[in-house]
Amino acid sequence: MKRMAGSSGSLRAGREQARVLRVGLLGLGNVGTGVAEILSRHRRLIAERQGVDLKIVRALVRSDGRLRQGAAHKVPLTKRAGDILEAPDIDVVCELLGGLRPAREYIEAALKAGKPVVSANKAVLARYGDKLLRLAAERRLGLYFEAAVAGGLPIIRTLREGLAGDRISRVAGILNGTCNFVLGRMEAGDTYAQALREAQRLGFAEADPSLDVSGGDAADKLAILLQLAFGLTVSPGVIPTEGITHLTPDILADAARLGYRIKLLAIGQRHTARGVDARVHPAMVPVGHPLSTVRGADNAVAVTSDALGTTLYQGAGAGGLATGSAVVADLVEAARDLWAGATARLVRSSGAPSTLLPPTAAKGPYYMRLRVVDRPGVLATITRILGRHRVSLATVLQREHADGAAAPVSVVMTTHTASHAAMNKVVGELSRVPALRGPPVVIRIVEEEHVEHTEET
Amino acid sequence: MKRMAGSSGSLRAGREQARVLRVGLLGLGNVGTGVAEILSRHRRLIAERQGVDLKIVRALVRSDGRLRQGAAHKVPLTKRAGDILEAPDIDVVCELLGGLRPAREYIEAALKAGKPVVSANKAVLARYGDKLLRLAAERRLGLYFEAAVAGGLPIIRTLREGLAGDRISRVAGILNGTCNFVLGRMEAGDTYAQALREAQRLGFAEADPSLDVSGGDAADKLAILLQLAFGLTVSPGVIPTEGITHLTPDILADAARLGYRIKLLAIGQRHTARGVDARVHPAMVPVGHPLSTVRGADNAVAVTSDALGTTLYQGAGAGGLATGSAVVADLVEAARDLWAGATARLVRSSGAPSTLLPPTAAKGPYYMRLRVVDRPGVLATITRILGRHRVSLATVLQREHADGAAAPVSVVMTTHTASHAAMNKVVGELSRVPALRGPPVVIRIVEEEHVEHTEET
Repeated sequence: MKRMAGSSGSLRAGREQARVLRVGLLGLGNVGTGVAEILSRHRRLIAERQGVDLKIVRALVRSDGRLRQGAAHKVPLTKRAGDILEAPDIDVVCELLGGLRPAREYIEAALKAGKPVVSANKAVLARYGDKLLRLAAERRLGLYFEAAVAGGLPIIRTLREGLAGDRISRVAGILNGTCNFVLGRMEAGDTYAQALREAQRLGFAEADPSLDVSGGDAADKLAILLQLAFGLTVSPGVIPTEGITHLTPDILADAARLGYRIKLLAIGQRHTARGVDARVHPAMVPVGHPLSTVRGADNAVAVTSDALGTTLYQGAGAGGLATGSAVVADLVEAARDLWAGATARLVRSSGAPSTLLPPTAAKGPYYMRLRVVDRPGVLATITRILGRHRVSLATVLQREHADGAAAPVSVVMTTHTASHAAMNKVVGELSRVPALRGPPVVIRIVEEEHVEHTEET
Repeated sequence: MKRMAGSSGSLRAGREQARVLRVGLLGLGNVGTGVAEILSRHRRLIAERQGVDLKIVRALVRSDGRLRQGAAHKVPLTKRAGDILEAPDIDVVCELLGGLRPAREYIEAALKAGKPVVSANKAVLARYGDKLLRLAAERRLGLYFEAAVAGGLPIIRTLREGLAGDRISRVAGILNGTCNFVLGRMEAGDTYAQALREAQRLGFAEADPSLDVSGGDAADKLAILLQLAFGLTVSPGVIPTEGITHLTPDILADAARLGYRIKLLAIGQRHTARGVDARVHPAMVPVGHPLSTVRGADNAVAVTSDALGTTLYQGAGAGGLATGSAVVADLVEAARDLWAGATARLVRSSGAPSTLLPPTAAKGPYYMRLRVVDRPGVLATITRILGRHRVSLATVLQREHADGAAAPVSVVMTTHTASHAAMNKVVGELSRVPALRGPPVVIRIVEEEHVEHTEET
């Protein structure tokens, strides 16, 4: 067998030395078009650099109406999945359809037909990643999914390889660009509805944005990270998840006044040897904290591990080109493994799997906003409830008096570290206080990170 | 040949399935001890996860006085380099000596003896990386050096693999933790000397810190990144380099008042098809910019590329454990390549090499601080000189009046975008103005990044 050009030892491997990897695309939408675009621009560069000449042999499309534009129009099309999945002239299948069906079946069929698979499908990987990785392993094939989480950020590669010799204790990230964009606009004064319309106008949010704004998309991505970081296999549906739809400009303004920015965070944290706390929710992040500077529709992931401390990865989390570039990196990796006779490494955090802890295990300071009728003794009632559950107040920020004496006023408080269980009880009891108007808004506060004193080499 | 366990297809590869990689360490100082420590804690975890059982066979030490501590004391020692370089029971040589000699000779000897090499040596890689990579390629061996730049951050891996299909236009980073620590302390009110003493006390700075504070260490690391990002081979000595020794608390205070933080940046930027501008100097970074939140002795690298936009990598840049974890990841990679019969991929940005542009090619806004005798017409003289070279003022921030009328006052200015060449001429002419006391301090300002509007998938 001819040796692959990428390992041929020539420092200036020319295109003629690069070996061709024949790629079949399932789907030629946003990401598929991004892949075609990157290869149209950089196929030669990649061949020179990596010794892998990436050739798109054909692409499956479900309708041939759109997508005759840009680089994608040069890709031969088919409407029959079998023309990709079973084709002898295709080395690697690249699944870019999105959604559960038929993507999952196609990935299985490709592996069963003996082809490695590159996928950008967070929904499938979050729900069936464990099974699909097992199937791939049985067939001694690679399954690559860098593009499924945080677009072009190399977070999967880092968890699989860069942190090969380290024990991870925490992953925390901004995994949904739509939410980050909407929150940024709300900080600048937009209402939630205005911010969402702007996101849709700019193409950051889908016509139906519910998967994004509910936190569901972030939970899918977190489920994939939990598997890699902790060997924790959970359905995204069991991860406690809260979205951003209940946030108002008032709350964003409170955050700014207190020195925070609100971000939708996805967090997985090892609390015990086998127990992992995982959740998706808005949180107040201190200004000056690295996650506070993540702007627009960017994503970021912070990984804390034994040896390395906290490392942060930040950049474009979505978009055809950014996601396409992760797909292309995976294709190069797939070629390398295929030609070397190696499958992609399978990473498990340890022999025994971790378990998901109940959400009540989490602890931290909280922000709370209440609407109350301004009557004597109301504040005393509230503080008595807090005291009963040993939740101590850090600040009582604000007490706006509305025009009429009977109109409700807003009370904003922050607490010292409290348990989630205690806060749940506080909220339950507060909701029975007659002077309260509407349920209290409760948001977790991220504590300022301790700057580690590592020694210099 | 037995198939490697890591590619055996078992999702739960146990330790018994992992194959042993026999490692020889050159050096058992800070990083070597870190590697021993990580393997003492996580050897089993790595074997399970990666199918690679990393065994330190022996370590070269130059004196056996210290280092009989922690995990390192269990490592068999030798004082003869040949016991590592030529030993038949060692698969991979791990060079952790630091410094140019004898490290460079040892790396060459190991490659000539047919052993892949993992090195953390920025000085050697910056000066001889090109030659050593060529030697490794001729022998069809891997040469891995993730630990040489930004400690545990996977920046080398990302440039080599993650950005495989992308064209890089810019790398900009905080590559020296000592400087970042010192600048942080100066922001908090320390003088330069106090901050440096504190860095030394905490082990962030060497007894002789000149390589760090002069920018030389950052220039070494930048030279390595330039090679990977642009295929630009330059000696670190030709990179225009400015350190932090001339900075004073006044300047840090000006920065804060203007909304900036001062960071020592290492920058490489493609200006023309083949021309790259590279430099190391302090710069004013806007508060809110991702690089502004890099704290303590952390490092960060921002990479801007065609498809991906700007991605940021941030974390511990030094320390035995952080750097050791990069070495361990490289050892796993080396095992994988060795057993698969592949060498590490060699990345060149393109067939034709880039060239270093003269520093005068750079453009941007500037901060300038002058000490002048407070005489009528002085400001007019200064602004006339600026005007003559088409440098326009953005702000004149401050004009402190000292006690005596004849005592000099400080004038702080910021400019709109100006060329480096024009600023050089301005500084030259200003230094001939009789009312000026001492040379003007000139610091580049990093402009607020444009938040890209990428489309959502």
